[in-house]
Amino acid sequence: MSDFRQQALDYHANPKPGKIAIQLTTSAETADDLSLAYSPGVAEPVREIAANPDDAYKYTAKGNLVAVITNGTAILGLGNLGPLASKPVMEGKALLFKRFADIDSIDIEVKHRTTEEFIDTVANIADTFGGINLEDIKAPECFEIEKALIARCNIPVFHDDQHGTAIVTAAGMINALDIQGKDIAEVIIVCMGAGAAAIACMELLISCGAQREKIYMLDRKGVIHTRRDDINEYKQRFANNTDKRTLQDAINGADVFVGVSGPNVLAADDVKLMADNPIIFACSNPDPEIKPELAHAARQDLIMATGRSDYPNQVNNVLCFPFIFRGALDARASVINEAMKVAAVHAIREIAKEEVPQSVLTASGVESLEFGTEYIIPKPMDPRLLPRVARAVALAAVETGVARVELPENYML
Amino acid sequence: MSDFRQQALDYHANPKPGKIAIQLTTSAETADDLSLAYSPGVAEPVREIAANPDDAYKYTAKGNLVAVITNGTAILGLGNLGPLASKPVMEGKALLFKRFADIDSIDIEVKHRTTEEFIDTVANIADTFGGINLEDIKAPECFEIEKALIARCNIPVFHDDQHGTAIVTAAGMINALDIQGKDIAEVIIVCMGAGAAAIACMELLISCGAQREKIYMLDRKGVIHTRRDDINEYKQRFANNTDKRTLQDAINGADVFVGVSGPNVLAADDVKLMADNPIIFACSNPDPEIKPELAHAARQDLIMATGRSDYPNQVNNVLCFPFIFRGALDARASVINEAMKVAAVHAIREIAKEEVPQSVLTASGVESLEFGTEYIIPKPMDPRLLPRVARAVALAAVETGVARVELPENYML
Repeated sequence: MSDFRQQALDYHANPKPGKIAIQLTTSAETADDLSLAYSPGVAEPVREIAANPDDAYKYTAKGNLVAVITNGTAILGLGNLGPLASKPVMEGKALLFKRFADIDSIDIEVKHRTTEEFIDTVANIADTFGGINLEDIKAPECFEIEKALIARCNIPVFHDDQHGTAIVTAAGMINALDIQGKDIAEVIIVCMGAGAAAIACMELLISCGAQREKIYMLDRKGVIHTRRDDINEYKQRFANNTDKRTLQDAINGADVFVGVSGPNVLAADDVKLMADNPIIFACSNPDPEIKPELAHAARQDLIMATGRSDYPNQVNNVLCFPFIFRGALDARASVINEAMKVAAVHAIREIAKEEVPQSVLTASGVESLEFGTEYIIPKPMDPRLLPRVARAVALAAVETGVARVELPENYML
Repeated sequence: MSDFRQQALDYHANPKPGKIAIQLTTSAETADDLSLAYSPGVAEPVREIAANPDDAYKYTAKGNLVAVITNGTAILGLGNLGPLASKPVMEGKALLFKRFADIDSIDIEVKHRTTEEFIDTVANIADTFGGINLEDIKAPECFEIEKALIARCNIPVFHDDQHGTAIVTAAGMINALDIQGKDIAEVIIVCMGAGAAAIACMELLISCGAQREKIYMLDRKGVIHTRRDDINEYKQRFANNTDKRTLQDAINGADVFVGVSGPNVLAADDVKLMADNPIIFACSNPDPEIKPELAHAARQDLIMATGRSDYPNQVNNVLCFPFIFRGALDARASVINEAMKVAAVHAIREIAKEEVPQSVLTASGVESLEFGTEYIIPKPMDPRLLPRVARAVALAAVETGVARVELPENYML
């Protein structure tokens, strides 16, 4: 067994199994404490909430509690291994919520017969929580699931594989376009992959100014175009009225390549076909669509990002999801809408343009980080992410009328 | 607003809303930590669990995690106030699990259209947990729900309102019978109330030796007898072939009265009709079926228990549920069966016969406690409950073949 493998297993088994536990936030030592925490005292907040449901935010943990929910159909890059096997990933996500944004988070693994049953199950337990983070649910079911749950729940429902990836990708992309001197409204974008993350990335880039007709999305069968009759309704929105059919057709003259597909699908020769000052986001993890060494050898004028921490420009969802939920919870937003996502994009990307705190340099093991081709996006451990992203998201919630509480004026300042 | 009411609300609102939160059990400080806790390291336990589902107990928090689940249809004595309003009670139960048995517990409030949908919802999320504590679900639905979930889940499912109450009642009752010199197989028992707790109490007393035909159960319409045609299948099991119709008919000459109904339904004159050396458990809370002062004035030879902490002999579920789950989880029992419940009864009742630790005397504010008419059952804060009840329950699981791991020989010794 490899060292890393053993280390990862040990980490999960010790000091006790798993990564999260419950802690008490009130005193529960004396009989008097317990008479407040449970019968008879507990009847008082029960009556308050029965009379005014919003008081659940005042007297219970609901308002800071996010459920990380999956059916285990698309676990990491490992595929459909079922709900139980996904539990370490979901606990890991709960750990990141706590670690980065002090959000209490519990994993829920759901088995089900039909998509409808999954939706019913989650909707039925949703009032327990302040927000729901959907995770590792395969496409295209994830689209229907998210849409139905947003409609049925009165709390934010966010499929991180779609929107977390999209937000961080868009933040890095807009910065990369700035550096390369390209206008988002003009660029030709090739998107390799047509799954949940790919579609969400392209939709958010369009929200940020990209033109739908300049996007070429490819699935396993090649370019998605208007004359194909084998594509689902979600891919259909990206059907391009074009004669391009192959990756090589599409990438010829393209400004941007976004890979959300699988390892090594992009060749050095393909990269050579791209326009001047190209941008490649090769997000497949752990093995990107093209190795950075190969891509940079093919093109000196390239900006490249991957999902890996051992190369520059890591596209990592942890830059977003703890903080977008922090802002949404603090504003008690009923949804996480497009304006809140776009606000998160810009809050994240602005941080990369500013002087980097010493703690980030130390954690990253480098002497300096300066906005440029090798630093287009903040590092995951950057302490500025929490206040900046949460504030931007919460303010966007207020501005778009989905916030249900007023924010303190100095919120996160 | 009364002082206690305000104090209870303050307790739930501060220092932050609610009573429970998440804590991390592993180090999550450095980038290296996070590469073990989440991608890429987390893939290792995922693969292990996919290959061997039981490894979920090795690499995740499942084995020590109990869900407290309700639909809010029978909250405390307050009735059907819906799932959201029940959240403080469920969080309170989670707090007690942690406080008394170091079990991590999270509340889940479920809304649903049909009983079947409630069952499906809970069964679908059950694999997330090591056990399920059902709570505050009204009768008779709670019987069907518990039965279906026990059949569908591979983890202990325990409706505390039924079995927790029954176990603690039986523990106190057997001790009271000993003191009064009565044989459980001979006594005539009147059970006022025919709801979930009442039925469970009587079933467990029968498991402990009571005779079904010597039990008179009463609902709102009086004695449940074989010529009534208005009773559900659960009450039907207690239909007595008798001419007794009223409480006065039933209690005349009875040895034992168990009240699991409502306040002040038992009069002093009724108590005078009971046999010599009678026993009254008046468990309605906060107002018992008869005030202890009244009952004792009517009968000098009485042993009496209530649900209240301000009288002797408090029947309190917290004497049982944290510890029965501790034993069940540690033995990795697939169910909590009758043998485990009976083992809990005897473990609890034996403690009351032994010398009381000073810490319990101090917490109870008394100089001494000696087994007798005013001390038939241990105090809730007794530290002996955890090791003794958990060990008895775990051993019973092993003996009845429902344990799925071996216990250390010195388990809880």
